[in-house]
Amino acid sequence: MELTGIGVGRGIAAGPIKRMPEPLAEPADIQRTADAETEIAAAQHSLAEVAQWLRERGVKAGGEAKDVLDAQALMAGDPALAKDIAKRIESGKTAERAVFDAFSSFQKMLESMGGYMGERAADLADVAQRVIASLRGVPAPGVPESDEPFILVAHDLAPADTALLDFTKVYALVTRDGGPTSHTAILARAKSIPAIVGVGAGAEELSDDTLVVVNAGTSTITAGVSQAEVEAALIKRAEWLEASNAPITDGALKDGHKVPLLANLGSPKEAAGAIALGAEGVGLFRTEFLFLDSQTAPTVAEQEAQYTELLEAFPGKKVVVRALDAGADKPLAFLNADKEENPALGLRGLRALRVKENILRDQLTALVNAQNKTEADLWVMAPMVADAEETDYFVGLCRELGLRVPGVMAEVPSLALVAEQVLESADFVSIGTNDLTQYTMAADRMLGSVGSYQDPWHPAVLRLIKQLGDAGKATGKPVGVCGEAAADPNLAIVLVGLGVTTLSMTPAALADVRAALLTVTLEEAQARAARALNGRTAAQARKLGSE
Amino acid sequence: MELTGIGVGRGIAAGPIKRMPEPLAEPADIQRTADAETEIAAAQHSLAEVAQWLRERGVKAGGEAKDVLDAQALMAGDPALAKDIAKRIESGKTAERAVFDAFSSFQKMLESMGGYMGERAADLADVAQRVIASLRGVPAPGVPESDEPFILVAHDLAPADTALLDFTKVYALVTRDGGPTSHTAILARAKSIPAIVGVGAGAEELSDDTLVVVNAGTSTITAGVSQAEVEAALIKRAEWLEASNAPITDGALKDGHKVPLLANLGSPKEAAGAIALGAEGVGLFRTEFLFLDSQTAPTVAEQEAQYTELLEAFPGKKVVVRALDAGADKPLAFLNADKEENPALGLRGLRALRVKENILRDQLTALVNAQNKTEADLWVMAPMVADAEETDYFVGLCRELGLRVPGVMAEVPSLALVAEQVLESADFVSIGTNDLTQYTMAADRMLGSVGSYQDPWHPAVLRLIKQLGDAGKATGKPVGVCGEAAADPNLAIVLVGLGVTTLSMTPAALADVRAALLTVTLEEAQARAARALNGRTAAQARKLGSE
Repeated sequence: MELTGIGVGRGIAAGPIKRMPEPLAEPADIQRTADAETEIAAAQHSLAEVAQWLRERGVKAGGEAKDVLDAQALMAGDPALAKDIAKRIESGKTAERAVFDAFSSFQKMLESMGGYMGERAADLADVAQRVIASLRGVPAPGVPESDEPFILVAHDLAPADTALLDFTKVYALVTRDGGPTSHTAILARAKSIPAIVGVGAGAEELSDDTLVVVNAGTSTITAGVSQAEVEAALIKRAEWLEASNAPITDGALKDGHKVPLLANLGSPKEAAGAIALGAEGVGLFRTEFLFLDSQTAPTVAEQEAQYTELLEAFPGKKVVVRALDAGADKPLAFLNADKEENPALGLRGLRALRVKENILRDQLTALVNAQNKTEADLWVMAPMVADAEETDYFVGLCRELGLRVPGVMAEVPSLALVAEQVLESADFVSIGTNDLTQYTMAADRMLGSVGSYQDPWHPAVLRLIKQLGDAGKATGKPVGVCGEAAADPNLAIVLVGLGVTTLSMTPAALADVRAALLTVTLEEAQARAARALNGRTAAQARKLGSE
Repeated sequence: MELTGIGVGRGIAAGPIKRMPEPLAEPADIQRTADAETEIAAAQHSLAEVAQWLRERGVKAGGEAKDVLDAQALMAGDPALAKDIAKRIESGKTAERAVFDAFSSFQKMLESMGGYMGERAADLADVAQRVIASLRGVPAPGVPESDEPFILVAHDLAPADTALLDFTKVYALVTRDGGPTSHTAILARAKSIPAIVGVGAGAEELSDDTLVVVNAGTSTITAGVSQAEVEAALIKRAEWLEASNAPITDGALKDGHKVPLLANLGSPKEAAGAIALGAEGVGLFRTEFLFLDSQTAPTVAEQEAQYTELLEAFPGKKVVVRALDAGADKPLAFLNADKEENPALGLRGLRALRVKENILRDQLTALVNAQNKTEADLWVMAPMVADAEETDYFVGLCRELGLRVPGVMAEVPSLALVAEQVLESADFVSIGTNDLTQYTMAADRMLGSVGSYQDPWHPAVLRLIKQLGDAGKATGKPVGVCGEAAADPNLAIVLVGLGVTTLSMTPAALADVRAALLTVTLEEAQARAARALNGRTAAQARKLGSE
């Protein structure tokens, strides 16, 4: 049996399947027979036990996983929840059902709040599962463990699911749901393992211990193979790992055509890691970390210190910094507090900064100061820019303040459609493929039910990128890509064929993309691009553009 | 002084300004000095008085306005609100402040519910204003009245504001906020009066009784003119009214190039009115009215009766019916009940129907039955279609069931970008300019803070329409427009120049568009289109394309 989905990376893996366990059955809504005190005590005991277990696991996991697990431990220990559960037991519910109902009600409240809190609802559901398992005296649904390497199959993976996975044993990830920007895909890139996401209903047929070969480059999972086929695949895996560990060279095609490979960073602390993996500079430096969790905007001096730290890590190299990108989906008290019906289509990015220009001026001033103190080649770009008029505004402000290379992100479809007007004033554009895809397809990239639309291989998206590439060629100005698309080795080749001049990605993807680019000439890349443009679907374009 | 905004229609008007009164000042949050009982009695008296007044006005206004006013009377009489106000007074607030706080709190609840209920928040605010005015013994902010014709200037107009206006006296509307799809714009078209919306801060300078000339065709308001200039403009107004009342002919350019003019309808009841105004058929029949307010989908028989009634009104004429267009922003219990973070980018239109294919099959079956019983030329199209694959699906289903002319709406940018693939299988496309603009600009068309993006004159939108027009020419298949853009006479000319073959609009706009088309040849329309495509902003494109 062969299944297909969306491949992440070009890796190959093989081995037996282990599935993420199914959630526990919903507790029956029956009349309590045990007395209330006993049931309340049982619930309290299980809540405490789960909180304790989560805290211990947090210490063991460390890092970001610890934060997630600690937050879950706090949920399990929340006195308001315990009180609500006790009240429900007193009104006649069993402990299991009271736990289920109380957590569901808290979960709904979180979901109705949307945004960050809404996303925490899934974490709460996970805690409820553990408490119910403890009450039943059964093992909580947990990540599969194994002494032998395996292929992990799941509906979808959330951060809490994967925090405790032993990635020396997980050779590949396969999920029924999710798209190229799902947590699973991001995780696979970060861990340098292959993944196939969005496989669809067929993924349900992959049962524990079935031997499979997973090939992310061709987006296929071949199930029911022989041990010999597994071993042959593992030899290919070793070759792929070796290629991924090939000596670091500057990004280039087989014919020597240069394609600088840059890193997407979210903090100056990540610079050293990116350089170690061969980043030739920074293609996207996100500045939101400076603004989140604060009631007022950071001062010029505070920002300057961070930008200086970043730029000092890249003397003589290009560093592209993106101005603050916030909106109602990630509201900042001092920038935008109003609730919006469709925050993805709201007052965000440059639109919000233009309303509060002092915040933008402070940020650009801090960048000028850092630029003038360091040796890096600083480029600055605005997010969520719609057209030439907005470009003129941002470029004008940058030049007034003394920034040398102002540019804009291409995320809104309109910008790509008037690319030649935009490049009359901007010095460069950088394509944010995630948002560009979301808007071009009019499909929320965070919404599971339309997840399949979030594919940058869609010919409509590729055609917009071509318009940008053509405008870049006509004006002789650079056109970069800094969305997830750049981290897909086959797509990276097509992007270059469409006229993209630099690729910026999560540092873990650099090796794979570097290796892929070395396999084709510019002419071949252009031929692949031309074929991909004529696909009728994203899947067809991926197939046409990968051969 | 000359101000500019977005003109609606091509009409001219002149006369003195009357402004919508400003809202009352917010009651001070001070300690109550009168005793609680007196204040509670005063609040109850004012609530009752306002409820009574609203009911009386409802009877006087009749029609849809009565519904709005009756709903407001119910709000004023809501016992929960009265109780909340009394509680606030008892805790030390003045009656005015208690009314203000209680209504604000209810308003926020409604707003947080979003959608239809969220829109009712403004109605509640209006009731609060009236109650506070009654407590203060001052006149409530009301619509201006005058025995002489006047030009109404407002921040923005809501249905409740305009329900009681005497439109034999209102010669034109001017608003600071709003765009081409705002209530003001829709109202102006329905009443066949000129309007200039989205004038911006300059609109604040237009004070009561200033004489102005309003020219919607050039989107200008000239203030401080002489009485003689007003009279000259009124002569032009008479000429324009006469042209609007010119004999009804089939839509065509000066050189005889046919451009069928069709009607957008929301119910079979509207057919007679459209025919009276010269509609040559129906370019968009919305079927949502059959599905709203019901817990289950209507039966095939129920739908068939309505479609038959519609088709019987148009023997031998083209009637384009759109399949159910619903999503999380207007959820139907049987179709899509899940809350979405960005409903405009969610599971809506064809996406939702495909998940519940039985609903789509029933609708198409009812349409086939009606088609086979009547003489009309029935075309059927799907909403929210993204690409060729979705087109193939819909067209396949239509043909399987026996529908003769299947097509798709062009609302998602991706569809326009792959238009030639889409027209390989669809028999026609119809451009929904409102949604196409919203998605191309990535700006919520219902959100005031990004209202200025909602302009179909934007060159990026025009370029997508050109791609559709070009694909239509290449395949010899019709490309219609059924969004608000078709009702803008100058834009209608540009659309024809871009390759659009039919225009469908609210029937009230037919006369203006018919008159405008007769002023240009196809070559002139194409020249205007070519100029508009090169505007750097919507305003520039409008100017370039209108001369």
